[in-house]
Amino acid sequence: MKYGARNEITATVKKIKKGSVMCQVDMSDIVANSMCSVMTLDSINEMDIKEGDKVKVIVKAVSVLIIKE
Amino acid sequence: MKYGARNEITATVKKIKKGSVMCQVDMSDIVANSMCSVMTLDSINEMDIKEGDKVKVIVKAVSVLIIKE
Amino acid sequence: MKYGARNEITATVKKIKKGSVMCQVDMSDIVANSMCSVMTLDSINEMDIKEGDKVKVIVKAVSVLIIKE
Amino acid sequence: MKYGARNEITATVKKIKKGSVMCQVDMSDIVANSMCSVMTLDSINEMDIKEGDKVKVIVKAVSVLIIKE
Amino acid sequence: MKYGARNEITATVKKIKKGSVMCQVDMSDIVANSMCSVMTLDSINEMDIKEGDKVKVIVKAVSVLIIKE
Amino acid sequence: MKYGARNEITATVKKIKKGSVMCQVDMSDIVANSMCSVMTLDSINEMDIKEGDKVKVIVKAVSVLIIKE
Repeated sequence: MKYGARNEITATVKKIKKGSVMCQVDMSDIVANSMCSVMTLDSINEMDIKEGDKVKVIVKAVSVLIIKE
Repeated sequence: MKYGARNEITATVKKIKKGSVMCQVDMSDIVANSMCSVMTLDSINEMDIKEGDKVKVIVKAVSVLIIKE
Repeated sequence: MKYGARNEITATVKKIKKGSVMCQVDMSDIVANSMCSVMTLDSINEMDIKEGDKVKVIVKAVSVLIIKE
Repeated sequence: MKYGARNEITATVKKIKKGSVMCQVDMSDIVANSMCSVMTLDSINEMDIKEGDKVKVIVKAVSVLIIKE
Repeated sequence: MKYGARNEITATVKKIKKGSVMCQVDMSDIVANSMCSVMTLDSINEMDIKEGDKVKVIVKAVSVLIIKE
Repeated sequence: MKYGARNEITATVKKIKKGSVMCQVDMSDIVANSMCSVMTLDSINEMDIKEGDKVKVIVKAVSVLIIKE
């Protein structure tokens, strides 16, 4: 399995918050960095994700913003 | 400084690859996870980023894809 | 503070509409152009944004679509 | 013509910079705010855009990041 | 009408699911491939889209992820 | 393998155009609809994609724009 994206990390699902259309998945990686994804409720239901699951987190490099403080 | 995005991490710039329009910035976080951003050459020139710089990496949750393998 | 994005403008928050997961922030710039951002409710709560606040609006050039009518 | 996006503005093309795959279109709106879009060279060739053209600029609200400085 | 995006298809609206901030539009193309868009409730109300309508579906190439299984 | 995205289709790679930083992958689905993805050259090299390969095309619903002409 290979992804056409430069950012790829394994994470554990910590919390799922469901709305009527969208839902939010809070995760953490192996060193406890927090990560978050928002997707449709339909997608999360089809994926059948629950707290404690290991998932792959993918972000295309074009979606990453760099800030120099 | 507060960002309207759920994913925020500090990283160090490892390598910058410049094309004629776009450029690619490879970074790593404190535990050596690699990250990557693509932006315009104009943006990187204005930011004046170079290898070794500390930057803030921001990703909105809607841009994050979860895969269950 | 420098942003790796080509589109950057200062705006005033006009209205915030909160859902259970996502929220919508309507803004206007100095010449009354309207702008809009959607983010998680968690993000807006952490930012502590309210109507009348001045904010920076950032959009990466790759997210901008041009249409020739 | 109606767009499923919250951010919509008319702009004038100021400058086009072409790379081998991507190209960058710098624009300004009626009050001289600068805007920028990056797209494929194929797209710009098909659109047949040139400096001075009026275009519609569209951004979905989910792609807009707010920062509180 | 020309769009600065590489992915463009005509589809028929099959189902609209409205939340308080966001809504989801399920569509299908001429060969019954399903497609889906999420946008603000404000946008869909302004577009006045309903089931059975023909719409144009636009996706920028940078937003498309390829996976090799 | 399950993806947290509402748009998923199988396609065949038709043409790859490589720049110095980015590259463009033109594809077509089973009924010859054309699709296109832009990614980094690094990603395509790691994926080892070539013309004729079958790939999975993934787009999050938030990245899909609907236009009513």
